[in-house]
This record gives sequence, structure tokens and C-alpha cells, in this order.
Amino acid sequence: MKTATETIQAIHWLDDKLVILDQTKLPHKEVFVELHTTGQVWEAIKQLKVRGAPAIGIVGAYGFYLGIKNAVETDIESFIKHSQGVCDFLNSSRPTAVNLSWSLNRLMNVVRTHQGGDVGERKQQVLEEAINIHQQDRETCKSIGENGGSLFKESTRVLTHCNTGGLATGEFGTALSCITHAHQKGFVENVWVDETRPLLQGARLTTWELQKAGVPHSLIVDSAAGFLMKQGKVDMVIVGADRITKNGDTANKIGTYTLSVLARENNIPFYVAAPRSTIDMDLENGGQIEIELRGEAEVTAFNDNPSSPEGTRAFNPAFDITPHQNISAIITEKGIVYPDYEKNFSEIFGT
Amino acid sequence: MKTATETIQAIHWLDDKLVILDQTKLPHKEVFVELHTTGQVWEAIKQLKVRGAPAIGIVGAYGFYLGIKNAVETDIESFIKHSQGVCDFLNSSRPTAVNLSWSLNRLMNVVRTHQGGDVGERKQQVLEEAINIHQQDRETCKSIGENGGSLFKESTRVLTHCNTGGLATGEFGTALSCITHAHQKGFVENVWVDETRPLLQGARLTTWELQKAGVPHSLIVDSAAGFLMKQGKVDMVIVGADRITKNGDTANKIGTYTLSVLARENNIPFYVAAPRSTIDMDLENGGQIEIELRGEAEVTAFNDNPSSPEGTRAFNPAFDITPHQNISAIITEKGIVYPDYEKNFSEIFGT
Repeated sequence: MKTATETIQAIHWLDDKLVILDQTKLPHKEVFVELHTTGQVWEAIKQLKVRGAPAIGIVGAYGFYLGIKNAVETDIESFIKHSQGVCDFLNSSRPTAVNLSWSLNRLMNVVRTHQGGDVGERKQQVLEEAINIHQQDRETCKSIGENGGSLFKESTRVLTHCNTGGLATGEFGTALSCITHAHQKGFVENVWVDETRPLLQGARLTTWELQKAGVPHSLIVDSAAGFLMKQGKVDMVIVGADRITKNGDTANKIGTYTLSVLARENNIPFYVAAPRSTIDMDLENGGQIEIELRGEAEVTAFNDNPSSPEGTRAFNPAFDITPHQNISAIITEKGIVYPDYEKNFSEIFGT
Repeated sequence: MKTATETIQAIHWLDDKLVILDQTKLPHKEVFVELHTTGQVWEAIKQLKVRGAPAIGIVGAYGFYLGIKNAVETDIESFIKHSQGVCDFLNSSRPTAVNLSWSLNRLMNVVRTHQGGDVGERKQQVLEEAINIHQQDRETCKSIGENGGSLFKESTRVLTHCNTGGLATGEFGTALSCITHAHQKGFVENVWVDETRPLLQGARLTTWELQKAGVPHSLIVDSAAGFLMKQGKVDMVIVGADRITKNGDTANKIGTYTLSVLARENNIPFYVAAPRSTIDMDLENGGQIEIELRGEAEVTAFNDNPSSPEGTRAFNPAFDITPHQNISAIITEKGIVYPDYEKNFSEIFGT
């Protein structure tokens, strides 16, 4: 039995530049890229060089600092206006993930309300807050893993979707953090990894992380998940989230809704693992979440290899909404939240 | 509006050889290959150069003839023994599709019981029967299309999985025959085509056939089907079948079970289209169907492009079982069969 466990850190702040592991090149190449400007950060998010809601929140925070550190404005009002422009621009890179706007709001609060100090000092305070966001995410993911790990019993066969590991966060991950924590206790018999079309985050990234962590796993096509559940080969499903509304409805990678229906049909617990920052208490329910539609070429080809005849049209929603009724519990850094979510979110987070 | 409709015929018998369109090369290349021996036919089925339960039945029939036409045996008993060997060998190429063994049984009946004639004459009768099977399949698929087409209303948005068109049969197809017949009446607003991992029969083959037939369609990843159903964008689901048991349980391409659960959850009719030869009245229920497990490389790569790290293990069931409770009706050449399937199969087919 392998016990060596390697955790993944894909985001690094080095003095005045951001260095990230380019996820589009994985698993075949481990390439780090330097980002020096807000525009480069926007592109990196758009092109999925960095992906995963918490990771986008962290990279977005550094991207915000890169956009304000050289601002020429010297009076606070003009500086706030400049900062708001940077914030709006970055927010447009991925509409579904809430962690990005949550990070940017934290930084805009520093810009707007930090007591005392001139523009130069506020710039420094923004950087400190970005580093805080990064560091807090790592601690948060560790706590999520400890909390979620407690749901496993011996010989658990768990199914997961997309990538929710260190790559998707500051370190450890969300759903994958639960799995690696359970593995450290010897409780994971097998992880069924959905390949997660169209961008194959499961095949490319989750397998790569599980290999490094020494956790036993098998790759499946997304549409084999139902068969495995029906055959009694899945004890639980754990996924991450891009945005959770007040009532517990959850936006996550396309295919998550389907897994939740299959899990309920087969009496298998279905868990969502996510930090507080993914929960958007301003939205009542999933119907209010904007679903990002992505390019057709992601479906008609893979890695620039066309799979369909020239001229084929495709429809490519990147996310779907899992209704709260299908979710057994939501695993957060503060503990495991059971329904009624609205009531229990308020209790646990005091919101 | 396009009205030109091209039907696909992928199997041709030319005097003493079989010529098939190599489906593994589609959609980028239309390559016909000649098959001269039973061994070549076995390989073509195994490698999915020909696929689709009815098409395998037809090609298997010709493959049987290729295996007996030069048999040196002159007495009937030895000839029957030789023929049985050919039959068993071909049957081993794909265990799930029942049409293959149905075809081979028809030919073995000719070998065994045809009145009069010496071995030479029986060989000739086997060829005639193989040509009959081929021709009957084309007529059968036309009738399935007419029967299934009657289920469509104006502006129907239909979702389908895998490939069930002319390529999978002698001509027209099963589920796709229903869709093209409905299209000729102007009733198809859009076909949602599941790409159908791992081998992408939807992306490669169904889009190709629908393009030729001028039917409007959009390609989706398999796990987007649930999202579309939940959003009210799917009016019906039609799929084919590889084997249907006495009670209506249906083995079909991996992912079909999932679609049936999603359709029921969202109150969408779920139809199976298949010829009588797909119905195996010897099996009581789906639990008795052998599910073919295929190679891991189909999952760990996409279009021969590795998608996961070296050493990744995969699990690759080619089919799953849809319980009869999830099937609204089964469309056959004799008419549309509603539950109770066992009773109604007997009534319509007199078995």
C-alpha cells in the first residue's frame, strides 16, 4: 500500500508576479507560466489555465493587485474608480463561479474603507489581503477535508466528477480533500473518476492528483456512472461547487445534476464540498444563477482533434444546477451542513 | 429548409465477397473494405468496423457463408459440424448483441433442416438466406421508422444516443429511422445528439448521417442531456437496443440507463426502437444479459489521443441495462408495443 502523499500547490506569488501551473497542459506536461498583468490573469482564467472556483478566487485576487499596483491616481476617489474598473473586468472572465466576485469584493472593501493611509498604503493592504485569501483557502480546504473525511467508513467506493483537488484551490482541494483525508485513514477502497467531458478535467487532472497522492482509482466515461451505481459499486458521491444559493441549490460542472438524480434513484448519499465563499446568500435559488455557455469546438473536438464532421453545431453549457432536494449534505470548513440549508447556513455562518 | 434525404447503405454483398464501410474511419474518411473470410468478418465486428446490433446480424450472416462455402465436407453430418464451428466462432465476437446469434441460428437451421439437396445445394441456400436477412432488415427498419415517426408532433425536439442509423442496420436504422421519417413529415425541430463516449458513435456517425439526411441537430456531451431535460428542451428520447428480454428490460450502449432515469425524473417519454430480432424471449430479465467489458484504452484516450496520465486504469462496460419500468414503449416493425411487454410481445409476434 502506498502511503506517500504529495499535495498540489499550483498558485505561487513571487514578489511582484504570479506563477501558476498551466492546467491546460496537464497531465502530459507540467508547465508553469508567469502572469504580470490583469489582462494576462483574465486570459488565464478564460482559457482555463487556472480553473476551479476557489483557485479562480485566489488568482483573481492577485490579478486585481496587478491591476492597481501601478495606478497613477493619487487621490482616493480616483483610485477607487480605477480599482472598480479592474474589478468589473476580472469579474467578466467566468460568470458562474462566485468565489471570484467574493474575493474581488473583499479587496474592493480594502480599497474603499481601509482607515488611514494614502493610495500607496492601500495598494500594500490589497496585496496583504490577497495573500490572506490565498492562505485562508489552504486552511479552509484542510478543514473541509477533515470534516468530509469523517463521512467515510472502511472500504468506501466513492465517485467524483471534474477536478476538485489542489489544482482547483490553494492546496488540498474540496471534494478531493475529503477523499485524500479519508485515504490517509485507510478508508478508500476505490475512487471512480468521471472523465468529465468536454474538457476532461477528471481524466487529465483528478487522475494526475490521485496518482501523486497514491489513492486507488479507476477512470470511467461520464455515462458509466449510472451503471456503477445501479450495480451497487458506489457507496457515495462527492462533488465540488461553483456557486451555492441560499436554499442549497448548487451550480457545478455539467453532469453534476445527472449524478444527483442517479444517486437519489439508487439510494446513494450525494455530498457537495465547498468553502463558505462558494455560498451566495444573495441568491434565493438555482434558477437565478447564470450558466456559462462555452465554445462549440470544446464539444466537436478534443485537443484540437475533431470528433465530428465539419460544420457540426454543438451546444455547450459548462455547468448545471443540482436542486437542494438531491443533496444529502454540504461539507464546509465549519462543519457538515444538512437540510434545511437556509436555516443551517445562517446558524453555522451567522449570516 | 433542406428536403434532400440521403439514406446510408454500409453493407454490400458482391458475388463472393462482402464490402463494408469502415465505421472506425468515419466521419473524416469514407473507406470501404473487402472481407473475404470469416476471420476477417470476426475482426471487423470486434474492431467495430461494423457495429450496431442489426448490422452485426447481417454481416455475421455473410461471414457465416464465407466460412462454409469452401468447406470440403461432402456428407451432411460433417458439414453440419463444420458449420457449427463457424457459428460458434462468429458468436464470440460480440456477446451482448442478440441479432448476431439470431442470424446465425437462422442459417444453422438451413444447414440442418433444409429438405433435399446435397452439401453444395445447402451452401447456396445459406447464401440466399443471408441475402434474405439483409433485405428483410432494410424492410424492417423502414417499418420501424414509419411506426416510430407517428409518435412525433410538430416541432419535436428529440434526444438520441449512440448511432442507430443506416450504418447500424441494412438501411434507414432503428431509432434514427423514426427520426428521419418524422423529419420527412416536417416534425423535427432539433435532434440532440449525445456524443456517446468512449467511441463517440454519436459525434462521429449520427451527426454524419443526420447531415446527409438534412435533419437539424446539435451535438452535446453525454452529461449535458440531464441539463437539457431539466430545462424543458427535450420532448422525447429515442434509443436503439442490443438485446431486449421477455419483460422489456433493454441492453443498449452505456449511458442509456442514465437517460432513462433522467427522462422519467423529468416526465419525458423514453422510447426504444428495435426489430423483433433484438428481442430475446429466452431471457426473463436484464439481469441475465452478459455485459461486454471492453479495453481500458478506449477510456484513457480520446480519438487515440491519451487523455490521462500514463498508467491510469479504467473500467469500460460497453452496455448497460435499462429496466422496463423506465421505457414508455418499444417501437418494432410490427407496431408500437406498450407495457405489459411480455404479454404484448406474445400478442404482436405470436411467440
